[in-house]
Amino acid sequence: MMSYYTQPLARLIEEFQKLPGVGPKSAQRIAFHIIRQSNTAVEQFASALIDAKEKVNFCEQCFNHSTTPLCEICLDKDRQTSQLCVVAEPKDLYALERTHEYRGFYHVLQGLISPLEGIGPDDLKLRALLRRLEDTTLTEVILALPPSVEGDTTSLYIARLLKPIEIKLTRIAFGLPVGSELEYADSVTLSRAMQGRQAV
Amino acid sequence: MMSYYTQPLARLIEEFQKLPGVGPKSAQRIAFHIIRQSNTAVEQFASALIDAKEKVNFCEQCFNHSTTPLCEICLDKDRQTSQLCVVAEPKDLYALERTHEYRGFYHVLQGLISPLEGIGPDDLKLRALLRRLEDTTLTEVILALPPSVEGDTTSLYIARLLKPIEIKLTRIAFGLPVGSELEYADSVTLSRAMQGRQAV
Repeated sequence: MMSYYTQPLARLIEEFQKLPGVGPKSAQRIAFHIIRQSNTAVEQFASALIDAKEKVNFCEQCFNHSTTPLCEICLDKDRQTSQLCVVAEPKDLYALERTHEYRGFYHVLQGLISPLEGIGPDDLKLRALLRRLEDTTLTEVILALPPSVEGDTTSLYIARLLKPIEIKLTRIAFGLPVGSELEYADSVTLSRAMQGRQAV
Repeated sequence: MMSYYTQPLARLIEEFQKLPGVGPKSAQRIAFHIIRQSNTAVEQFASALIDAKEKVNFCEQCFNHSTTPLCEICLDKDRQTSQLCVVAEPKDLYALERTHEYRGFYHVLQGLISPLEGIGPDDLKLRALLRRLEDTTLTEVILALPPSVEGDTTSLYIARLLKPIEIKLTRIAFGLPVGSELEYADSVTLSRAMQGRQAV
């Protein structure tokens, strides 16, 4: 299918097709869009790629994305030092930041325990988490892991791991999303909502 | 929303968001994917961008994408010299090539007449088309323009333009797509199919 395009165009379409969620049609459309842009615009795009790859690493403390040894959140003096929120991936951290609700620190596990995918506890940033818990100003660890088999397994594993340590351990609530209708909720969500019921 | 990301990541997400069909969520997902790739892979992607932008121009004869003054199709000695197929955009040419049905030459108009978008006949490669028709080996011009107001207007305009020239002018057929059901066809398609009915 690629052979109809002139070679540099075929190569560009191929590169776009490698990206997650980009199929052959979108890749073609994006490549045609690119060659219609100015030289400067394309050079800026290319340098943004190189730049992000070169400069973005992980924070040595929380394993969020960072261009410096410690990330902006870990360096933020205005954060509450009593709370630590554990997430699976940086994207979860960004989602929580967008709520403007939580003002504590984070710890990014960089994955979830998944025997099916061959990911065990040692593949996650758990040892670093334990080291951080030696900080006595911490009073609560909040697990913000997804409501999935992997999220549940990892939460249970961490609960066992933290048992010897005297610290409050909580997990974010699962239930009906705000604005949704009971009749359209899947039964797993609904049973989680029942289990998590609270006194009014 | 961007401010939660470290700067080179924010910039990369912004670049991906500029692409057609890529929203904020996809842009984030793609950017995270990029920084997980090897240095070599990212450098190859960046160089594919620069390379395509630098090398891909338009064929001087048919206005298809080309890295050389004349494109591969125009230079192809095995093509039928009697037919010329007029399309709006290179992507239409690629779609026709994929059918392996047509073996003549092409002419890419690089647009369609659209008074609403301020695109008139002079914005299209029509003068170049007329010049190509001086070639006496040509016996048929096939209009492969879309069944839309713009496609119809442009087809009519070309029909008037070619009236003084003695050459067979045809337009590709419009009707029910193969495999579709009559009951689900929209009425415009169905009436086009009726108008285009042929003796069996």
